[in-house]
Amino acid sequence: METEIPPNTNPLVTPLLTDMYQISMCYGYWKNQIHEKNAVFDLFFRKNPFKGEYTIFAGLEEVLRLVAHFRFSESDIAYLKTVLPNAEQDFFKYLASVDCSRIKIYALREGTLCFPRIPLLRVEGPLAIAQLLETPLLNLINYPSLICTNAARMRLAAGDDKVMMEFGCRRAQGPDGAISAARYAVMGGFDRTSNVEAGKLFGIGVSGTHAHAFVMSFNSLADLVHLRTLKSADGAREVDMVEMVTQRRRQLGFTDTNEGELAAFAAYAMAFPGTFLALVDTYDTLKSGLQNFLIVATILAELGYQPLGIRLDSGDLAYLSKECRRRIHETALSAHLPILDRATIVASNDLNEATIYSLKEQGHAIDTFGIGTNLVTCQNDPALGCVYKLVEIDGAARIKMSEDIVKVTIPCRKIAYRLLDPSGRPILDLMSRVAGSEEDVPQPDRRILSRHPFEENKRAYVVPHTVVPLHHLFWDGQIRQPLPTLPEIRAYVMQQLKAVRPDHLRAVNPTPYKVSVTNDLYSYIHRIWLSEAPIPTLQ
Amino acid sequence: METEIPPNTNPLVTPLLTDMYQISMCYGYWKNQIHEKNAVFDLFFRKNPFKGEYTIFAGLEEVLRLVAHFRFSESDIAYLKTVLPNAEQDFFKYLASVDCSRIKIYALREGTLCFPRIPLLRVEGPLAIAQLLETPLLNLINYPSLICTNAARMRLAAGDDKVMMEFGCRRAQGPDGAISAARYAVMGGFDRTSNVEAGKLFGIGVSGTHAHAFVMSFNSLADLVHLRTLKSADGAREVDMVEMVTQRRRQLGFTDTNEGELAAFAAYAMAFPGTFLALVDTYDTLKSGLQNFLIVATILAELGYQPLGIRLDSGDLAYLSKECRRRIHETALSAHLPILDRATIVASNDLNEATIYSLKEQGHAIDTFGIGTNLVTCQNDPALGCVYKLVEIDGAARIKMSEDIVKVTIPCRKIAYRLLDPSGRPILDLMSRVAGSEEDVPQPDRRILSRHPFEENKRAYVVPHTVVPLHHLFWDGQIRQPLPTLPEIRAYVMQQLKAVRPDHLRAVNPTPYKVSVTNDLYSYIHRIWLSEAPIPTLQ
Repeated sequence: METEIPPNTNPLVTPLLTDMYQISMCYGYWKNQIHEKNAVFDLFFRKNPFKGEYTIFAGLEEVLRLVAHFRFSESDIAYLKTVLPNAEQDFFKYLASVDCSRIKIYALREGTLCFPRIPLLRVEGPLAIAQLLETPLLNLINYPSLICTNAARMRLAAGDDKVMMEFGCRRAQGPDGAISAARYAVMGGFDRTSNVEAGKLFGIGVSGTHAHAFVMSFNSLADLVHLRTLKSADGAREVDMVEMVTQRRRQLGFTDTNEGELAAFAAYAMAFPGTFLALVDTYDTLKSGLQNFLIVATILAELGYQPLGIRLDSGDLAYLSKECRRRIHETALSAHLPILDRATIVASNDLNEATIYSLKEQGHAIDTFGIGTNLVTCQNDPALGCVYKLVEIDGAARIKMSEDIVKVTIPCRKIAYRLLDPSGRPILDLMSRVAGSEEDVPQPDRRILSRHPFEENKRAYVVPHTVVPLHHLFWDGQIRQPLPTLPEIRAYVMQQLKAVRPDHLRAVNPTPYKVSVTNDLYSYIHRIWLSEAPIPTLQ
Repeated sequence: METEIPPNTNPLVTPLLTDMYQISMCYGYWKNQIHEKNAVFDLFFRKNPFKGEYTIFAGLEEVLRLVAHFRFSESDIAYLKTVLPNAEQDFFKYLASVDCSRIKIYALREGTLCFPRIPLLRVEGPLAIAQLLETPLLNLINYPSLICTNAARMRLAAGDDKVMMEFGCRRAQGPDGAISAARYAVMGGFDRTSNVEAGKLFGIGVSGTHAHAFVMSFNSLADLVHLRTLKSADGAREVDMVEMVTQRRRQLGFTDTNEGELAAFAAYAMAFPGTFLALVDTYDTLKSGLQNFLIVATILAELGYQPLGIRLDSGDLAYLSKECRRRIHETALSAHLPILDRATIVASNDLNEATIYSLKEQGHAIDTFGIGTNLVTCQNDPALGCVYKLVEIDGAARIKMSEDIVKVTIPCRKIAYRLLDPSGRPILDLMSRVAGSEEDVPQPDRRILSRHPFEENKRAYVVPHTVVPLHHLFWDGQIRQPLPTLPEIRAYVMQQLKAVRPDHLRAVNPTPYKVSVTNDLYSYIHRIWLSEAPIPTLQ
C-alpha cells in the first residue's frame, strides 16, 4: 500500500526548523563516521497533560509531509556554512544529499488515545538523519496532540448534545498556531470554527455572526436608510422593517431598549434573515439585547424564517442562559410562535473545561459553546512534554539513566498492543520487544503476564479478548498507510472515548490507565539497567 | 517618507486568517450600505500580563506586511461564496476590490514599553475594511507582544551580564509559533536562539552543541575508530586523542567516569575543538560528566583551544553550577591552565522567571540561561488579551458600556504622549483627543492637569521636561516610517527598561504606571458616558 505524498503547504516546515545542536551533532556523527549507524529513537511523553490520564495523539499527517519533503535547499546549506565556518566542506555535500528515503517511521494512528511511555513514533534509520528529525517531529506533534486532547476534554465536559465552536484565532500563537488550533480542536471533538482560513483549508464548517462593533455602528432606527424592507421567506410579501420593529417594540412593551442595538439587529436580520443570531450583551443582556432580539425574531418568525438564536458573551452565563430561555419561551407562547423555542443559545467569554463543568452543575440552557483563548493556549498546561530518546544503536539497546525513575527510558525497539475485553473495552497497553519471542506477542484468549516496567511487585495476568497492535509502519521512503480525513479521525477519537473506562477520563482524580511490559521486556530492561548503572561506593 | 513594502513571507497571512463574523459583519455593513462610513478602532489591552505592570508592544512589521498585501484571492472569494450562499453576488465583487489603500494605521513604535488602555494601534478607514482587520491584527500582535514581554521579564530576572538563549522550538505552537518565539524573544532581550530557521530568517545568532543522544551513541573509547587525532590550534602538533584521554583520566584520578561519555566528549572535541561545550548530565554530573569534561578540556587547553564550557540540564542548578565552577577552578590551578577558568556554565531545564530569581537568591555560577517551554508558551499567562474596539464612526464618538468599569472603552480618536522628567524618566502617559484644543497638547515645562479616566478624585498636575508623542502614522496606503532592524528594536526595548522607574518593573508587587487623560478628554468621556447610559428605574 502506498499513499500519494501530499504537498508541503507550510514553507516554514523545512529541515532548518530545528535546534542548532541537531546540526552540530550531525557534524559530530559525520566527522567521526558514525552517522550511518542504525539508530532507533522513541518519541513519547512521560505525563498526560491537564492533570488527566489520557492524551490524543495528533500531528502525524504533518510529520509525513515533513519527512516526504525533507531536503536542505541550497540556501539552507549556504546559511549553515556561515554557522559552522570551521566544518569541512564535504560535510555540506553530505547534508545536501540527506533525505528521509532510508528512514522508517512506525506510529500510532492519528487520533489514537494514548498514554505515557508508549512511543507515539518509533523512528529508525541512519543515526545522523534520525537525529536531525528530533526537533521538527517534536514541534509537529506536541502542540497538535495537546490541543486535540484539550478539545476532547472540553467535549467530554460539555456532553455529546452540545455544539462546540473554536473561536481562538486572535489569541493563538500566530497564524499557524491559529490554523492548527482549529484543525486539532475539530479532531478532538469540536464541531466548527470561526477561523475562515481553517475552514477553507480543511473543509471545517465555519460559524460567526457579528461583534459588538456591529451593534455600536448603529445609533438609531434612523440609520436604516438604504435598506428598510424584508421579503417573507416565501417571497409573497415584503415588510418595512423600521415600521415593523417600531410597532412590535410597542406591542411587546420593550420600549426601554437601546435603539441603536435594535437598528443593528434589524439591519443584520435584513442581511441574514435565514440565519439571524444576535449578540445580545452590548448594552444590557436582559433589559436591552434579549428584548431587541425578540422584537426582530418574532417578525422573522412571522415572515417564515427560523431565528437562529442569541449569543451571550459576558455575565453569569448559567443564570442568563436560563433566564433568556424562559423569556424566549414566554414570548413563543404569547406570540403563538412555537418556532421561537428552537432558537439556540450560544455562550462564549473565557470558557474552559472547569467553567463548563461548573455551568453544568449550576444548570444552564446553553446549546452551543464558543471557546477561544483557553482552548488554543491550553492555559492549564500550555505544553505537552514529548521527548525523543535513543533506544537502540546498531542493534545494541541504549538506556537513559536518571535518578528520577520517571526519566529512565525503556530501551530497545518495541511494539505495543492494546488488550481489549469482550465488550471492546481497553484493559491495558502492553509493550514488548520487536525482537522478543513469539510467546511475548499477546494473543486473543491466551493468558499473558503484564508487568509494570520498573516496580517488580506490580504484575498481573491478563486474558485479552482482542489484541490491537498499536504501531504501524507509516513511512519507509513512501507513505505506507492511507491518510484518513479529518472527520474520519474525529470519529475515531470519539469512538475510543466511548470505549474506554470512564474513570480514566473523568476530570477529577482519574484512574491511571495501565501501561505495562511483557515479562521478557521487563527482564531485558532490568538487565540493561543494572549493567549500565555502576554500583556506587558509599564514602 | 515612504518605506519599501516587504514581501508577505507567510502564506497563511491572508484576509481569510480571520473570524467568520468579520465576513458576516462586512456583508451586513455592505448590505445596509454603511460599509464606507469612516470608522476608528483602537487596539489595546486592559491588563498587563504575568501579574506585571508593563508590556512590550511587538508585531508591527508583520501588521504592515498584512495590510500591504491585503487582497482576497479568487479562490478566497470562491470559498466565501460557499460559506455565504445567500449573499448577493455584488458583495463578492466588492470583496474582490477590497484592499487597505484607504486604511490609516497610527501605532506605537515596535518595541515600545506600553500600558493598559493606551492604543497600540489606531486604525482608521472604511468601516467594513477596518472591521475585517480585527482578527488578523489581534493575531499578529497578541503573541509577539506577549513573548517579547516574557523575554524582557526573564532578561530583567537574569541581569545584564548573563547570556540568554531561546530553546523553545520543540514546545512552541507549531512552526511559526517557534519562529515567532525566537524573533520576539530576541526583541525582548534574549541574545541567541537554538532555532536554525529563525537564525536564517532574522540573522539571529544560533547556538547549540549536543544532546544526550550524542553521548549515548558512544559505548567506549573503542568506538573512536575513524577519527582519533587532533591537531593543536597552531597546527604544529597532532595528538592521539584516545591515548591522551586515557592517560589524562588516570592523571586526574577520574577513573570511574562513564567511558562512553568520555568517548563522546573526545569525539565532539575532535569535531569542534574551538567550540567545545559538553552536556555533562547524561549519567552523573559530578561523578562522570564534569570529570570527563575536565579530561577533554585540559587536553584542548594544552593544544591552544579555549574550551567553551559545560551545559547542565537537570538537578539542583544552584548547587551544581557552583560546585562545577569550583572544581573547574581547582583543575585550572592544579593543571596550570588558567584558560579553563573562562569556561562558561550553561543551564537549561524548565527554567522560568521564578526559577531565575530563585537561583539568584541561592547564589549560582551560571553564565548562560537556555530557556524553552516556559518562554515560548508563556506558561504564567499564555495569552495577552488585546481587544479591538470601535471608538468613533463618521466623527461621532462611540463608547462600549459595561457594568465592569475596566471594560468601558475610551471613546473617540485619541493620541498619547509620554511625559518625561529631566532625567528622561517617564512620569506618566497622557491621552488626549486628536480633535482637542491646543491647550490639551502637553508641552515641555508647562504644567498640565492629568486625570484618571474614570475616577474623578484621581488627578495631578504634572510639568514634563520632555514630551514624547507615542503614536505615529505608519500606514496610509504606504509604509510611512522606516522599519528598524531587530537589533535596533531590541536596543530600544533595553533602553526603555533602563529609563523607567524600577518599581514598575519588579517581579513582586510592582507599582502601576499611570495612564491618564487630559481634562478635556476626561470631560468628553463622561459626557458621552452619561448620555449613553440610561438612568435605570429601580423597581
